[in-house]
Amino acid sequence: MASMAAASFAAPAAAAHRLRRRPPRLPLSTHLAPPAAARVRPRPGLRVRSALIEPDGGRLAELVVEEPLRRARARESLELPRVKLSRIDLEWVHVLSEGWASPLRGFMRESEFLQTLHFNALRLDDGSVVNMSVPIVLAVDDADRHRIGESRKVALFDADDNPVAILSDIEIYKHPKEERIARTWGTTASGLPYVEEAITNAGNWLIGGDLEVLEPIKYNDGLDRFRLSPAALREEFTRRNADAVFAFQLRNPVHNGHALLMTDTRRRLLEMGYKNPILLLHPLGGFTKADDVPLSWRMKQHEKVLEDGVLDPETTVVSIFPSPMHYAGPTEVQWHAKARINAGANFYIVGRDPAGMGHPLEKRDLYDADHGKKVLSMAPGLERLNILPFKVAAYDKTQGKMAFFDPSRPQDFLFISGTKMRTLAKNKENPPDGFMCPGGWEVLVDYYDSLAPADNGKVPEAVPA
Amino acid sequence: MASMAAASFAAPAAAAHRLRRRPPRLPLSTHLAPPAAARVRPRPGLRVRSALIEPDGGRLAELVVEEPLRRARARESLELPRVKLSRIDLEWVHVLSEGWASPLRGFMRESEFLQTLHFNALRLDDGSVVNMSVPIVLAVDDADRHRIGESRKVALFDADDNPVAILSDIEIYKHPKEERIARTWGTTASGLPYVEEAITNAGNWLIGGDLEVLEPIKYNDGLDRFRLSPAALREEFTRRNADAVFAFQLRNPVHNGHALLMTDTRRRLLEMGYKNPILLLHPLGGFTKADDVPLSWRMKQHEKVLEDGVLDPETTVVSIFPSPMHYAGPTEVQWHAKARINAGANFYIVGRDPAGMGHPLEKRDLYDADHGKKVLSMAPGLERLNILPFKVAAYDKTQGKMAFFDPSRPQDFLFISGTKMRTLAKNKENPPDGFMCPGGWEVLVDYYDSLAPADNGKVPEAVPA
Repeated sequence: MASMAAASFAAPAAAAHRLRRRPPRLPLSTHLAPPAAARVRPRPGLRVRSALIEPDGGRLAELVVEEPLRRARARESLELPRVKLSRIDLEWVHVLSEGWASPLRGFMRESEFLQTLHFNALRLDDGSVVNMSVPIVLAVDDADRHRIGESRKVALFDADDNPVAILSDIEIYKHPKEERIARTWGTTASGLPYVEEAITNAGNWLIGGDLEVLEPIKYNDGLDRFRLSPAALREEFTRRNADAVFAFQLRNPVHNGHALLMTDTRRRLLEMGYKNPILLLHPLGGFTKADDVPLSWRMKQHEKVLEDGVLDPETTVVSIFPSPMHYAGPTEVQWHAKARINAGANFYIVGRDPAGMGHPLEKRDLYDADHGKKVLSMAPGLERLNILPFKVAAYDKTQGKMAFFDPSRPQDFLFISGTKMRTLAKNKENPPDGFMCPGGWEVLVDYYDSLAPADNGKVPEAVPA
Repeated sequence: MASMAAASFAAPAAAAHRLRRRPPRLPLSTHLAPPAAARVRPRPGLRVRSALIEPDGGRLAELVVEEPLRRARARESLELPRVKLSRIDLEWVHVLSEGWASPLRGFMRESEFLQTLHFNALRLDDGSVVNMSVPIVLAVDDADRHRIGESRKVALFDADDNPVAILSDIEIYKHPKEERIARTWGTTASGLPYVEEAITNAGNWLIGGDLEVLEPIKYNDGLDRFRLSPAALREEFTRRNADAVFAFQLRNPVHNGHALLMTDTRRRLLEMGYKNPILLLHPLGGFTKADDVPLSWRMKQHEKVLEDGVLDPETTVVSIFPSPMHYAGPTEVQWHAKARINAGANFYIVGRDPAGMGHPLEKRDLYDADHGKKVLSMAPGLERLNILPFKVAAYDKTQGKMAFFDPSRPQDFLFISGTKMRTLAKNKENPPDGFMCPGGWEVLVDYYDSLAPADNGKVPEAVPA
């Protein structure tokens, strides 16, 4: 089913502008920058360079084995003690393999784990500090540990028993689950989606080491071509002569408020003196909670938004960020921002309550809605990144479209929450005109239509688009 | 009762060497250093200076109002909205007033609170980073907040309704209790002593601002003269021509294993090339949990240890650290170390499971016993401090004394835990000869003797020594 659905998604317009790696260079869009030599530098005082921002640690930690060595490494992997990867483990292998977590070169050893938990940052050998706010760790159980014995290396295998990677110079240490959860989420309440999926039943040990990935991670779900690595994104931004890259993380359908914000950000960057700011529209592609709209449907929705001209394909790159979602609010937003530095973004748009969710047990949001952007602006290792706080957009009834909220006339604005949006789509009702492009809205209605109502009233397992 | 008990503690030998601020300069002990000009510098490569280590932020934040202004400020305080201080609040006012938390100049505003929770460090205006791992915050409730209204200042009053301090340029923000607890302790299990005492029933708001303390904080418990401020300690270390100061934090009776460690540390520092390393033996004097030995008894015990010659008074300064105890393990040990930098210590001795305790609900220690020293060695803002890991001392049955554990002959060593020690003292049994000096042990036996057994089997309220 997944592959059928994906087939209908072949060569979408949204993908074309992204994957057109060697396009005709002329005619250039008026949005595209003149050659580098002619470019005006951004105004003094901005902490940016005309070249792309450097990855954390100076270079991308790309961990996929080079082609000539792959066969030998694959053979070696068959001889080593095996560790089976869960779906989320594999997503982290993917994240690590492409250098999103640079300079990390594998699953964390205890020193990195402790620095992450306590300081949200890693100190490098040269004394410099990079941000690292969520533990990227691999859990093993007693049986695994016994099987590994004194071996200095293990092989990581996927659910179908295919070798995926080798972990070398390993260190096995205790998995302090309660402490990890408390320090990462600021709560230990039961019902945290990532915790239930990946921690509660995970092993009592963590294994860290240097990762060598046998070949690029693919999911064969029709969306792999949207999964551009940091290196590929940097290549694309360079090809487009970007002199600023602004990243927008999302895990929800795009509505016109988002689009307004992104368009307005570009306008502000142009005003600052940048000649060709490029938007990285970067939906999260890893694990999400059951009631989020699945990736395949979100990608279909994003495609419609670009087709409908809400965002300009010439200055927009849509790609999938392969990380799983923690829903860890102010802690996680740092990871979202840091990973985008590694992909070449030097501006990061941060909204209200980023990576937040409702408290699983109490009737309130888990995080203060303002803490995310405050913490992000103070986070160690993110000093090079320009944080752009989200302006609040709402539906302006007088204009019949999404607009920035004007506190002098609150009565004119309608706030349409995610819950409200979902309720409308589920009931096949339409939102006010101008809230979302009609093509995008149809995708949402189709998605909720595809969900057969479950007997227990809960959201059923999502069907791929 | 408290004052009677304190009277018996007047002018102890242990105090004499500390408070002898203008002693006869001759004859100098052989332990005392030659004048500064003749001093040999420590060997190159050590991150220390021949002068005392600078306080965090460059100068001590001393917040007690200068004498000529006290009367005016006291009058002003009577006109301001009032906030009542708990016992622990008052301890924090004390800590802040003397600059232990320098460069902090008052209870934390939200920006400092968030940096502490997430990064255990504060970034200063000049971009430098200082360590700050436990929130130093003041909670107020809805009624307080209403009473404060739009005032930019409040007055802080003690339990007897005496004005203590003025807090200016205030900021009131939400008190996210669950998140504060989870991120500080790495657990939200009920039964954490500081949480039950100071957080669970505290107000839902925090108030930060600049603190002006009306006069030096005194407890009138006979121990005030042992409460030397960082400035007074620095004066004392300078007077003694210390070229290294090594701090030993404790909240338990001193046994000969501790003494061995402290003596051995001095020997190691002398070997490094220091000429006059001074020990700061620094018992914690603020809030402790019910089953810890109370401060007055501990001070009496420390006194005996010095009287019995187990530690050398000429090279030892015993003083009280006024902070309350969090029992927050790796998070709190950073605070313990950072505060001692401000008092002039450039070496910090860290033991097994510092600031740790048993998990309140599970049969295990709350923290991994090695995490404290690991986290301390990696903590941002503590790079200037030399961390000296504790060597394990145990009772060597072949020598009949405390000695460093020799893993080649484990059968010769007896580990006497705090619990074991307490059980012996409660039962008026003696520990093996050489475990603790007899005078010190007697104090412990007297202490447990003073505890009338409670009907419910719980540890009764402690009686001051």
